[in-house]
Amino acid sequence: MTINGNLLVAGTERRGSNGEFHGIEAATGKPLPVSFGGASPEEVEQAAEQAWQAFATYRETHLEVRAKFLEKIAEEIEAIGDDLVVRAMAETGLPRGRLEGERARTTGQLRLIAREVREGRFQELRFDAGDPSRKPVAKPDLRLRNVALGPVAVFGASNFPLAFSVAGGDTASALAAGCPVVVKAHSAHPGTSELVGRAVQRAVASTGLHPGTFSLLFDTGFEVGQRLVADSRIRAVGFTGSRRGGTALMEIASKRKQPIPVYAEMSSINPVILFPGALNTRATDIAAAFVTSLVLGAGQFCTNPGLILAVDGAALDAFVARTAELLRDVAPQAMLTPSIAKAYCDGVAKLRQHSEVRSVASGRPGSDFEGTAALFETSADAFLANHELQDEVFGAAGLVVRCRDLQQLEAVLDELEGQLTVALHIADEDEAAARRLVPKLEMLAGRLLVNGFGTGVEVSPAMVHGGPFPATADGRSTSVGTLAIYRFLRPVSYQDFTKALLPAALR
Amino acid sequence: MTINGNLLVAGTERRGSNGEFHGIEAATGKPLPVSFGGASPEEVEQAAEQAWQAFATYRETHLEVRAKFLEKIAEEIEAIGDDLVVRAMAETGLPRGRLEGERARTTGQLRLIAREVREGRFQELRFDAGDPSRKPVAKPDLRLRNVALGPVAVFGASNFPLAFSVAGGDTASALAAGCPVVVKAHSAHPGTSELVGRAVQRAVASTGLHPGTFSLLFDTGFEVGQRLVADSRIRAVGFTGSRRGGTALMEIASKRKQPIPVYAEMSSINPVILFPGALNTRATDIAAAFVTSLVLGAGQFCTNPGLILAVDGAALDAFVARTAELLRDVAPQAMLTPSIAKAYCDGVAKLRQHSEVRSVASGRPGSDFEGTAALFETSADAFLANHELQDEVFGAAGLVVRCRDLQQLEAVLDELEGQLTVALHIADEDEAAARRLVPKLEMLAGRLLVNGFGTGVEVSPAMVHGGPFPATADGRSTSVGTLAIYRFLRPVSYQDFTKALLPAALR
Repeated sequence: MTINGNLLVAGTERRGSNGEFHGIEAATGKPLPVSFGGASPEEVEQAAEQAWQAFATYRETHLEVRAKFLEKIAEEIEAIGDDLVVRAMAETGLPRGRLEGERARTTGQLRLIAREVREGRFQELRFDAGDPSRKPVAKPDLRLRNVALGPVAVFGASNFPLAFSVAGGDTASALAAGCPVVVKAHSAHPGTSELVGRAVQRAVASTGLHPGTFSLLFDTGFEVGQRLVADSRIRAVGFTGSRRGGTALMEIASKRKQPIPVYAEMSSINPVILFPGALNTRATDIAAAFVTSLVLGAGQFCTNPGLILAVDGAALDAFVARTAELLRDVAPQAMLTPSIAKAYCDGVAKLRQHSEVRSVASGRPGSDFEGTAALFETSADAFLANHELQDEVFGAAGLVVRCRDLQQLEAVLDELEGQLTVALHIADEDEAAARRLVPKLEMLAGRLLVNGFGTGVEVSPAMVHGGPFPATADGRSTSVGTLAIYRFLRPVSYQDFTKALLPAALR
Repeated sequence: MTINGNLLVAGTERRGSNGEFHGIEAATGKPLPVSFGGASPEEVEQAAEQAWQAFATYRETHLEVRAKFLEKIAEEIEAIGDDLVVRAMAETGLPRGRLEGERARTTGQLRLIAREVREGRFQELRFDAGDPSRKPVAKPDLRLRNVALGPVAVFGASNFPLAFSVAGGDTASALAAGCPVVVKAHSAHPGTSELVGRAVQRAVASTGLHPGTFSLLFDTGFEVGQRLVADSRIRAVGFTGSRRGGTALMEIASKRKQPIPVYAEMSSINPVILFPGALNTRATDIAAAFVTSLVLGAGQFCTNPGLILAVDGAALDAFVARTAELLRDVAPQAMLTPSIAKAYCDGVAKLRQHSEVRSVASGRPGSDFEGTAALFETSADAFLANHELQDEVFGAAGLVVRCRDLQQLEAVLDELEGQLTVALHIADEDEAAARRLVPKLEMLAGRLLVNGFGTGVEVSPAMVHGGPFPATADGRSTSVGTLAIYRFLRPVSYQDFTKALLPAALR
């Protein structure tokens, strides 16, 4: 399969004229074959203009055509074969099993959303018949449907080279809604992006859609992304990345002549609450499950459990001891990029040097490109007094916060920023205490889970992968699951329309 | 019924300690009896804190209780009797018939939303059963519901003293969603606000709700509103007013530690497109309907038809001539406030002096507190070259834009900012041309209507009263109709919850 570093603009390919960069082998920091050309301002313009042109027809594609298109993308991704996994392994350092699973997740997601498109529920069709004889004024005939927002800029995520990238959740739900997509590839996996981009491009062509329905751009810095978000033809943004990057895009979007929604998923430390009964009965089991979740994918999940809250005492000691014991055996793992590895290393060093934080255990040390799992602990008093202890350390680092009692644990919850997930570990006897906290947790996060960890994100109609700021820019939506389609829609009401004028679905 | 100028804070009343102001008789500019005390920062704090306290229980009130509460508010408003209409007439200058109608609309809206609450569809309950035997990993049990965002700040609108004010659409839909409400009364109708505020307060008490579920604050300037939007306990904002006011609130909300949604309805000139066939056959009838809509309520509707687009020619001449003829007979009407009257007068003067604008006709002149209807015309070339001609002139002023042909008319549409409504006047022969424009119009406005004017906004499940910026701050929602409830909700997912821990609706 071809990787030549070209931009894929609306059915064509061309060398980006704005500098170049290489994919980097995550495990070694060495450049991989093929250089990628960054998009110039003109090339960004062209992609946006083509998306805008495509929107005129794509927004009203028959739902069956749109569903088949999504399924075709899935087929085309599968047709790339092992080349995709091999390239993604090299670029991301993620192991084969994970990437094969992620590929299945990505194609499964496309197919689930295709089914949802066929059902068409997201159109939110509403009919309210008129009544010309109503007094004092006639009642108009009113019909409502959701329409697509317009072309969407999607930013590939470093940590999911397939499922949150070129043909990931944002792209799938935007395309499902009727929005063309311009993807800004993440420089952490440009070759993987190109392979998938070509698959989407082929699906566009074989479905007979306007070629502007999809474009893929590379960026040597931040300019391409910033220009896309500022472009008047782009009408919504899907982003997964850092808090700094996400808030910068939010600001650009809010300063446009016409502000647009930014769905940025940014920062979450995913608190895990260990209730006393659960700790008393299962401390070591929970420790084992925690370590598994903490080190999964080198901890590079938005839902990584970075914060453990529990009441101080012997049972918590047992949990910490067992976690430490398991952690010491954890092998170092290649991180997604050298800069992510460095940021992780710096974050861990900061915790290690923090006067109020105790280093409990570390995994086995590795190279400069690898992350070593790390466990820290602090008191609730210190956590409450030092806001920086809430900062996400992206990677396999966990912080245990020892609380005096459940009341202080609740005080810690009150100080937390918005989260993607909160996990509760409970035994029967904890149910009353847990129940009392649920309303607070609903305000804190988009997903609450019992006796588990948040690192597995089921692609389901009932999934919410989102949460109050800074977990995401807009806590009213989800980036995973079928509800994600609604992010790219807005309602329009049709009053006293003649049959011929009405959109087909409302006739 | 009592009007004493007190703040209504969470079941109590007290004199606001931050300056004072009077209601003003709209027709004369003279102060009405009773002075109102503005809320101090401490009093804003108290209202927000009480709303936050109330939220803990109100958010989970049984839907039947919440529905009865909304119905009780409607009853209490009716129980005020004629005092409400009389005071509103004095404060707003609106005639009795309009205010009686608006009261019926307000109570009807509360009852419609109560029915919607009973049905509970807005909870968006979703169930996705788990499967412990699934390979490679067990499938979790996932359930989803919408939860209330939290306390909502509602800004009363000057132009709808009942239907978009203390117990108007924003309040009804926020309360329906489970959000306590703090209303900042509009200083254009403080006595009306107090009467309705007391009605809501009585409904809170007789339903046995936490008194913090509702508060009403007065403001001598802008500080109370700004503080409310900045308060960490307020989680969403409903506003109807000027573009300047709305964008100022948007900015405050976006700079909070946790940004919150602002639903600001701001500025719309509601284009009306007269297609050639319609003009050829019904120019004078359309003119009559246009004048009726233009001058309704002294033109003080968000949906006032301020812009007429048509192809130049004899039929348009006939329309303009008939409109001018009818307009000259229109009596001056008291405007809502002296400052609105002045702003209207200034806006009209600006159009009159504009070198590219021709003054076609005026209604009969009136006092400084009255608005005189006015019709202007310009060419599409001039309209395209002078962006300020898009500025809303709040009141009964209309601008006819003469286009060379439908193509130039389309070019004008392309330059328009977001709108609440677009009206199309068509004959059978116009259907093809109109149909071609519909996709463009869907991008431009929240409601499209055929052979009518947008000034009547039906309270319906299929109504969208909203639209792209600057019509509103967030074109993804509506402020009228049952869909408005969704503005104050966000989804939460519950994974592997035990039955006892689940919210009742999801068990």
